[in-house]
Amino acid sequence: MSISSASLRRFINDALLEAGLPADHAESAADILATADEFGVSTHGVKLLAGYLKRLKAGGTRSQGRPHVIKEGPAWALVDGDAALGAVTGVFSMQVAIAKAGSTGIAYVGVRNGGHFAAVGCYSLMAAHAGLIGISVANDIPSVVAPGSRKAVLGTNPFSYALPASRHPPILLDMATSAAAGGKVYQARMLGKPIPDNWIVDLDGRPTTDASLYPEKASLAPAAGHKGFGLALLVEALAALVSGAAATWGVGSWMIGDLARPTEHGAAFIAMDPAVFGGRKEFLERVDALIDEIHAAPPVEGGDPIIVPGEREHAHQARVRREGLVLSPDVAENLALAAQMTGLALSQYLSSPASHDRR
Amino acid sequence: MSISSASLRRFINDALLEAGLPADHAESAADILATADEFGVSTHGVKLLAGYLKRLKAGGTRSQGRPHVIKEGPAWALVDGDAALGAVTGVFSMQVAIAKAGSTGIAYVGVRNGGHFAAVGCYSLMAAHAGLIGISVANDIPSVVAPGSRKAVLGTNPFSYALPASRHPPILLDMATSAAAGGKVYQARMLGKPIPDNWIVDLDGRPTTDASLYPEKASLAPAAGHKGFGLALLVEALAALVSGAAATWGVGSWMIGDLARPTEHGAAFIAMDPAVFGGRKEFLERVDALIDEIHAAPPVEGGDPIIVPGEREHAHQARVRREGLVLSPDVAENLALAAQMTGLALSQYLSSPASHDRR
Repeated sequence: MSISSASLRRFINDALLEAGLPADHAESAADILATADEFGVSTHGVKLLAGYLKRLKAGGTRSQGRPHVIKEGPAWALVDGDAALGAVTGVFSMQVAIAKAGSTGIAYVGVRNGGHFAAVGCYSLMAAHAGLIGISVANDIPSVVAPGSRKAVLGTNPFSYALPASRHPPILLDMATSAAAGGKVYQARMLGKPIPDNWIVDLDGRPTTDASLYPEKASLAPAAGHKGFGLALLVEALAALVSGAAATWGVGSWMIGDLARPTEHGAAFIAMDPAVFGGRKEFLERVDALIDEIHAAPPVEGGDPIIVPGEREHAHQARVRREGLVLSPDVAENLALAAQMTGLALSQYLSSPASHDRR
Repeated sequence: MSISSASLRRFINDALLEAGLPADHAESAADILATADEFGVSTHGVKLLAGYLKRLKAGGTRSQGRPHVIKEGPAWALVDGDAALGAVTGVFSMQVAIAKAGSTGIAYVGVRNGGHFAAVGCYSLMAAHAGLIGISVANDIPSVVAPGSRKAVLGTNPFSYALPASRHPPILLDMATSAAAGGKVYQARMLGKPIPDNWIVDLDGRPTTDASLYPEKASLAPAAGHKGFGLALLVEALAALVSGAAATWGVGSWMIGDLARPTEHGAAFIAMDPAVFGGRKEFLERVDALIDEIHAAPPVEGGDPIIVPGEREHAHQARVRREGLVLSPDVAENLALAAQMTGLALSQYLSSPASHDRR
């Protein structure tokens, strides 16, 4: 199945309009999901849409939810996500952080009553596109064990940041604090492939390469042991303990369980404006110079050139914006399901072979 | 060699006074180094003192250096470390961040012209002891390769944070963004022991377990590949690109090279005051509850109880404050060297076997 980048955005937007979202919310959320697909992060793109639509229909995610600031100071705000789609709340909250950091230099926005936030790197990137440093984190239902344990206690709690550059695209890191994101283990399970031995542990806490055990009979392992687990705890603190969102097992699953109940995810968004501290131009030049230096690092013999985080994603995005996206079967299946649920005619969005011939 | 916790503090303090530091600076720095030893992090404690004294004597570290704010707003400051001892600048800068966050909720302090910052977790802990969240990072001379490269391009760029709790000691993570800190590889080298195969790569970029290659013929590997490398880049940005400190190969070594030249390390300190956002009490209770939940996680069969980051260190500290520290040969050697350099009579600080018998 093949679709142009613009049509994918339009499809997600139209589906969310059908689900009752206001136009500005549908557009924000479509941008977040489509950007993940453009970046090649298919586990966090349109593949999520059908699940989101189910929750919107059941009411656990409120189509008319309006994220709003409940308390604030010049350099911070607490946002009630109003059980809206996580992507809607994420975009709103990072906009607040960016606006505040423009006068205070640094700003923190904590979110309670949020939803599943999809690829949190997309919110960090909003800051970078505005010339600011962005940091975005979110918690999730537990799936990751503490080192030495056999039962999940924290979510994959993603940590992301983006640094604006001038001659280069922004540096962008979006990482699960687990060794691998749950979606990657699912993907291996569906394909019947073994996984590296440091991704999951079985019910006895022993490492295993058998992806089919996850999630019923296995939990994710933290990245780099106590380091990833320690970062996950910081994410939980910034995203939930400060904001007053649900924490650990108090967070609802966006996929399973009671679809009519809000998930109450937490998240945190930090923006820093280098223009306030000194000069934006000088800062961007320093980031450019750092990227140049990393590009100049010698690869191992026969290896690929050295790149910075986000570079592969931006290259992927540029290519699919020219050539369109070829959707893998699991993503295509979810796209078709979303079309079916909303009554949209998928054929009006997909690329015909002819349209590709004309490029 | 055995020494009480209080005597170790006093020894470091006296040695720094002999080196010409003002009393308040000597006390700050002694607390940072002695705390690392109390935590069992002997690579970042008094072992560093002799090297620091050499730089103080040669002038690359200024004994009379006075860290000061050069530019600030209500929620941020840039500090010139004035080539003072890194620990002095670290304590000063986190104090500024804590004071600002008390009214703005969140504050960022960036440092230029700093020194080697020792265990950055100690600055984060200052915030936690004041009831705030603390985050501290610093850059260093490159010793870590980018994934797929064979030449170092970033320092071990430590990332640390501390979370205050009420019934429990603070959560404290202090991690190198490399798989292991350089000091640990040195230690293995000195002991002639092999190291795990993911700690260093040789000059061709191939993983090796031969610690004797480091640092001349090997570089450190990032923790968890692109994740640790991505975090190291964020540290470099917060610590140096924002503050205007030296970056990557512009940073001087605190150990080798021209001891009369300031190292120009960069660092960043972020403090967040939960009392501004909501209530400190509620926040501390949430942290306590999270710690309780992690303690209740079931260990693997026959495994130790599950702990949070910093718990082992705080337990170690409590024990050595009661029982005194037994210094390993490499630390004892450096302590003796520091005594020799400053003319202090080591015997006046060391515990006699009799004094231990009386405990």
